[in-house]
Amino acid sequence: MSVSPFAPKAFPRLLPIDGFDMAVAPAGIKYKDRDDVWVLRGARGTHIAGVFTKNLMPGAPITWSRRALLAPSADLPRLIVVNSGNSNVFTGRQGDKATELTADVAGKVFDADSQAVLIASTGVIGEPLPVEKIVRAMPAMKNTMDADLWEEAARAIMTTDTYAKGATAEAEIAGTKIRINGIAKGSGMIAPDMATMLAFIATDANISQGALQSILSGFTQLTFNAITVDSDTSTSDTVLLAASGAAGHPIVTDAHDAVLHEFKNALLKVMLNLSHQVIKDGEGARKFVTVNVSGAVSDDSARTIAMAIGNSPLVKTAIAGEDANWGRIVMAVGKSGEPADPDKLTVSLGDHLLAENGQLSTRYKEADGAAYMKRDHIEINVNLGLGAGVFTAWTCDLTRRYIEINADYRS
Amino acid sequence: MSVSPFAPKAFPRLLPIDGFDMAVAPAGIKYKDRDDVWVLRGARGTHIAGVFTKNLMPGAPITWSRRALLAPSADLPRLIVVNSGNSNVFTGRQGDKATELTADVAGKVFDADSQAVLIASTGVIGEPLPVEKIVRAMPAMKNTMDADLWEEAARAIMTTDTYAKGATAEAEIAGTKIRINGIAKGSGMIAPDMATMLAFIATDANISQGALQSILSGFTQLTFNAITVDSDTSTSDTVLLAASGAAGHPIVTDAHDAVLHEFKNALLKVMLNLSHQVIKDGEGARKFVTVNVSGAVSDDSARTIAMAIGNSPLVKTAIAGEDANWGRIVMAVGKSGEPADPDKLTVSLGDHLLAENGQLSTRYKEADGAAYMKRDHIEINVNLGLGAGVFTAWTCDLTRRYIEINADYRS
Repeated sequence: MSVSPFAPKAFPRLLPIDGFDMAVAPAGIKYKDRDDVWVLRGARGTHIAGVFTKNLMPGAPITWSRRALLAPSADLPRLIVVNSGNSNVFTGRQGDKATELTADVAGKVFDADSQAVLIASTGVIGEPLPVEKIVRAMPAMKNTMDADLWEEAARAIMTTDTYAKGATAEAEIAGTKIRINGIAKGSGMIAPDMATMLAFIATDANISQGALQSILSGFTQLTFNAITVDSDTSTSDTVLLAASGAAGHPIVTDAHDAVLHEFKNALLKVMLNLSHQVIKDGEGARKFVTVNVSGAVSDDSARTIAMAIGNSPLVKTAIAGEDANWGRIVMAVGKSGEPADPDKLTVSLGDHLLAENGQLSTRYKEADGAAYMKRDHIEINVNLGLGAGVFTAWTCDLTRRYIEINADYRS
Repeated sequence: MSVSPFAPKAFPRLLPIDGFDMAVAPAGIKYKDRDDVWVLRGARGTHIAGVFTKNLMPGAPITWSRRALLAPSADLPRLIVVNSGNSNVFTGRQGDKATELTADVAGKVFDADSQAVLIASTGVIGEPLPVEKIVRAMPAMKNTMDADLWEEAARAIMTTDTYAKGATAEAEIAGTKIRINGIAKGSGMIAPDMATMLAFIATDANISQGALQSILSGFTQLTFNAITVDSDTSTSDTVLLAASGAAGHPIVTDAHDAVLHEFKNALLKVMLNLSHQVIKDGEGARKFVTVNVSGAVSDDSARTIAMAIGNSPLVKTAIAGEDANWGRIVMAVGKSGEPADPDKLTVSLGDHLLAENGQLSTRYKEADGAAYMKRDHIEINVNLGLGAGVFTAWTCDLTRRYIEINADYRS
């Protein structure tokens, strides 16, 4: 497997965060000689917010975790247990039993409330999860708990990702310094799996569960829900945000409290960074594409249009072919079904205006477009000229390599 | 360009239909040494129904024809003028002028009402239509009008189709024999165009415009709107149905009149045949895929689910890779957003039951699935187990060749 051309030179340094410790282990679920289980423990009082896949055929861990999110024990530590190699999806009743057993044993081993253990799994689907391997690894993991294992954690949750993904930021809340760490695994796919996106973010900020959930839900729309590799939706997608409160500032219970301004900027930065890393590691991706839509009748309308462009196979193959094909972009705007008027629409690639007034711009030079498309970062700018609605989405090109990965994985 | 493995040995014999004559000509719009303009004339009294792309950025011919459909002259022949090589899309005000000129000259040359001339164009986008070449060809075309040119017409409207597409059927209405001929051009794509689907159907049946439109709209949902190559929607898609009434039976004004039973069966057969030919000539297609959804809460819900499966890149690449990947099918059901319950869902490939009760069927043998996937006709059967909603969609596999055609067309 060739590494993404966007792979960073090194994993960023994610420092420990007060209130969290963790362990990794090679349970041997599917991979050999690598860690495939990660347990993150948040100290007593940790609040966790979560966003899960909208796919209506979710895996057993999703069903379990949705409930566990709402059952926090006030007096015990919180746990997040993640495994790679098997997604525990479409595994029927035994899949549910596997999540119950995982939570039950994890709670006992790590002194936490079993009912509030969050679980995420990624890997092969339709095969029974060898849950006994996971629970058998736990007692030894308890003895290796450490606060400084973020990079190891990022590696343990990888499937076919070509590099480990992490991001970190610092901010102040009411004069108290806080830290935010995030790790993610992306849309690499492993035969015969489907893409799964997992992201886990931790902070020592002291924020109520309600405010945390409100912030996470809103920012997920602007980050992890604004990226697309192939329009398909995994049955396991999970984003969790845990706040230990260990930084010690007074608890913030209102998501709109001005005291959170700097924290929210830092969190958005971490989430954007992680979501962009996921796209840059998209299967076969050689171009990172930013789709800026403005002038739509609403932000929602701009979002639908941006995702229609980002999901269009014709737009994405044109980008792979380094063709400044504005016609396919206009086609994608039209098929979105959102209000649009050809005569008011402008399409630019970076600073090069291509289309205006329903036709090719007289100012456009084909050589400029051709040169621009050779870059590895492409920016598509569409202005509808109708209103104030804006949205930015991110995608990658659709290459022959995508087909090879997803069609030829058996050979 | 390699010919589709599904190409028929020969074009079917489409006999003349009373009330219609036509001509083709090599106007030299883009191609050399081949016909690229077709004029079909329906005798006075011909009714025409039409269905057009839902893309909100339609080409000038779509805008013109939508209006022309509603402006029929009772006392003059009706015309359909089609050109290939240039789609007259995103050509601004001069595009509108080109359609006006085409209609104006065609009306005069062929003794028809200019305001009711229907126009369809397919080919390069964003380039001015050399309309003068089209109108210059018309006087000579008038001298070669003939009723027996259906195959020539099917060839004149091709762009990158690898074979000409035609279908014919006969039926009786109130004891009178009638005929139905149809031709189509499919989703071949030409650099740097987008796919366009055009279909033109003619009959000597005597049916009112209202009844004709009702029948065409309903059947288009079950045929041309039930096929998908890549989920993208052309700015030029057009289906027209012209009825000359020359068969001479009493006019039928009610689409639900029992006297039309046999006619409707024959028309549906022609439309299904043409739409399947379009899919079989899909870019890079090597497998013809039928997606049968049943047991949904409604037909609309079944349609959304069938199209979600048919549009999923992960399902389509798995088919290209000859992998019986039921997990990706279930994923696509889940992402459709329609009501579904994993525990009630069954997934079969042909007669092979793969998934039931939310997991792999115990009766399924992997060797059976692997053998089945080697066929060139694949049938995916999904039963939701919830209600009586059914829908069938058709698609093709997503192959490396699709990317080559759409990304590498400039090299």
